[in-house]
Amino acid sequence: MKDLESLSASQAARALARREIKATDLLLSCLDRIGHRESLVKAWSSLGKENALARARELDKGSIKGILHGLPIGVKDLFDTYDLPTSYGSPIYANNYPASDAVSVALMRQAGGIILGKTISTEFATFKPPVTHNPHHLKHTPGGSSSGSAAAVADFMVPLATGSQTAGSIIRPASYCGVVGYKPSFGKVMLAGVKALSPSLDTLGCFGRSVGDVALGVAAMSNDLSLAEIDQLHNKPRVAICKTKDWSFASKETAGALALARFTAEAIAKGMVQDISLPAACKDLTLLQTRIMSFEMARALIFERMRFSKKLSPQLSQQLSEGVQIPYEQYQKDLMKAQAARFAIAQLFENEVDFLIAPSAPGEAPLAKEGTGNPVFCRGWTLSGLPCINLNVSSGPNGLPVGVQLIAGPGKDRFLLSAARAFAQALPDAVLRDQA
Amino acid sequence: MKDLESLSASQAARALARREIKATDLLLSCLDRIGHRESLVKAWSSLGKENALARARELDKGSIKGILHGLPIGVKDLFDTYDLPTSYGSPIYANNYPASDAVSVALMRQAGGIILGKTISTEFATFKPPVTHNPHHLKHTPGGSSSGSAAAVADFMVPLATGSQTAGSIIRPASYCGVVGYKPSFGKVMLAGVKALSPSLDTLGCFGRSVGDVALGVAAMSNDLSLAEIDQLHNKPRVAICKTKDWSFASKETAGALALARFTAEAIAKGMVQDISLPAACKDLTLLQTRIMSFEMARALIFERMRFSKKLSPQLSQQLSEGVQIPYEQYQKDLMKAQAARFAIAQLFENEVDFLIAPSAPGEAPLAKEGTGNPVFCRGWTLSGLPCINLNVSSGPNGLPVGVQLIAGPGKDRFLLSAARAFAQALPDAVLRDQA
Repeated sequence: MKDLESLSASQAARALARREIKATDLLLSCLDRIGHRESLVKAWSSLGKENALARARELDKGSIKGILHGLPIGVKDLFDTYDLPTSYGSPIYANNYPASDAVSVALMRQAGGIILGKTISTEFATFKPPVTHNPHHLKHTPGGSSSGSAAAVADFMVPLATGSQTAGSIIRPASYCGVVGYKPSFGKVMLAGVKALSPSLDTLGCFGRSVGDVALGVAAMSNDLSLAEIDQLHNKPRVAICKTKDWSFASKETAGALALARFTAEAIAKGMVQDISLPAACKDLTLLQTRIMSFEMARALIFERMRFSKKLSPQLSQQLSEGVQIPYEQYQKDLMKAQAARFAIAQLFENEVDFLIAPSAPGEAPLAKEGTGNPVFCRGWTLSGLPCINLNVSSGPNGLPVGVQLIAGPGKDRFLLSAARAFAQALPDAVLRDQA
Repeated sequence: MKDLESLSASQAARALARREIKATDLLLSCLDRIGHRESLVKAWSSLGKENALARARELDKGSIKGILHGLPIGVKDLFDTYDLPTSYGSPIYANNYPASDAVSVALMRQAGGIILGKTISTEFATFKPPVTHNPHHLKHTPGGSSSGSAAAVADFMVPLATGSQTAGSIIRPASYCGVVGYKPSFGKVMLAGVKALSPSLDTLGCFGRSVGDVALGVAAMSNDLSLAEIDQLHNKPRVAICKTKDWSFASKETAGALALARFTAEAIAKGMVQDISLPAACKDLTLLQTRIMSFEMARALIFERMRFSKKLSPQLSQQLSEGVQIPYEQYQKDLMKAQAARFAIAQLFENEVDFLIAPSAPGEAPLAKEGTGNPVFCRGWTLSGLPCINLNVSSGPNGLPVGVQLIAGPGKDRFLLSAARAFAQALPDAVLRDQA
């Protein structure tokens, strides 16, 4: 019964379903780990210890409730929870107790998950650096905006935690913290009950320490339980590397990670793993995502701008003021271009490739004082609505993790999970293969 | 200063902007009307009289804030408001005070609108008959789910009120109450802060007594201020009548309304107004909408099902139990068929027609004891995401109003408003022309 907190979510879920371990013991192990580490890492905005223990005892006595039976879960503090305060990372909502759970949270509870606490989000899931530290090196950022979720999972405080991505808020912190992050297809998980930032882009997903973990998490969050069963890859997939138009932002360690990923993919791919460029309709993806997000967040946060402008950070206030200036006509044009780009990408996946490998971040996690890192390598993929999974493949000059993201065609989440598992199994390092 | 409550929203907005009338006087007229009529009509779930009066006094003293400056507004009780209770039409949320406004409500306030109160919604915007009466004949339903908003606008209690449509919750009550209802293109108004029922379908819009009114309302709610200026029709549009596959549900009065609409449209149309059928890809639109809604609402209301099942109406509980049974795979197939249908409809509008005229409801408002009426003539158009406007064109055997809906291509909201105004101006009856 020792070290239960080091079990991955899928290992723990299996042991819980077979009654080999108790939900109470797993929870106590996680709480013990949090007790030792939280003062350093600062991943949590609140913990619901008593409620979680009561729920664990109930689950240990009753029947198996679902695929997350007895699993402790961290919920990004952007998701409403009826029994825990929900601040959206802002002092405006310091005392906010929502009347209900976000749909995705309620679905995780229905599947037997135990909401252990809320993990720290940046201010409304934007860019102001949070108090959370990268557990691998405390002076570095865990990334954002799902800072606490990525750090808590990386630090073995909890096996599974939710996240949201509007620019790069799942894939980037997953890369910085060396965990598996899964941003499913746009619309896969209902947004209701999660604070809106940019509704054309906001996408919910989760963090775990293996592909099986994030499959479990999104299966429960979306109620698509078929995702929890990862198929073997039946055929060798067509794989390509996509450095993207933003390649100039990539550091040496990101270039190295991509080279290693290419080498790894060659073991499972059909034919050569070649470089690919996105179709011409996609040339402005990063710019379009940035401007659409800017436009929408200035409207989505209108209530806070009108009533609590002094409680917004100067950085966010500035961004919102810029967003307000974007004319509606520009926004409409951008949405139409985005739709054309999505269509072109769908054709690419139809005709040329089964999955892409692309950088997750410019490099290893920067120093915390420099911010939460640049989401440039995620913006376009978020706008495209494609499912993405970050896997840890190497490390940077400070020994911090560096990941790559695997990207499949629109709606091809089940295939992506299969491909990610096969890819992880092919990684040259035994420790990294644990991510499978 | 008499009868200010009978001004349409656009008439009042113009007079307010010119300081010809005071926001305070308009508000007092509306409150007076509510005082006389509310015990009979029961349109309101709460009124914020003091806050509204305070805001009206402020607006009368200050500069012109925006396109809704000084206009009293009813907000469907499905939309969050920070200063008024928000029940979503359910006893579960009888004492719910949200921490913030829905985005669309905050945008209306920013434009100078005064939130006068919350209008009655059916239970979570579904089908349980509400306490609200049709102001034209109290034994009849106002329709649903935006029951209070349609009734309040029809009864001159307020010039403008918000609504939401998932099946037929704007167009149908607008037809039953004889007001102008506008369901804009899907996604035009941000959903954030409105209780989710079926996120692939939920669409926000408003009710007024003229095309100009609903244009003002959605211009503010979406922040697309260009909608507030309705262009003249430059060219004669291609118009067609679409009876839909569900024509067997139409009563004689609906057939009559459509005949009158055809006659009216001939005055403004390019060439003959002919009958049109939707492409083959659209044959199951109504079924697809019904099943997608059923699937999604069973997930969207999971929190309420898990924790407050006894406070759900038996009717809704039954619907949710049915929705839970729909497999995820079926839902995914339905979404793909819906997408194909949307594409085919977009082609139809591209190549053959500028706007369609279709029934808004099977007939005049049924007796309240029979329910809120059948949304069958709206389901497919909601799923298609097209902008729709109900206009009152005739009446039924009990003298109750009967409308038709004008429908334009995807995103063609500005054109639809121009067409609806031209259509209303061409109506044979001077009273009905007031809707222009």
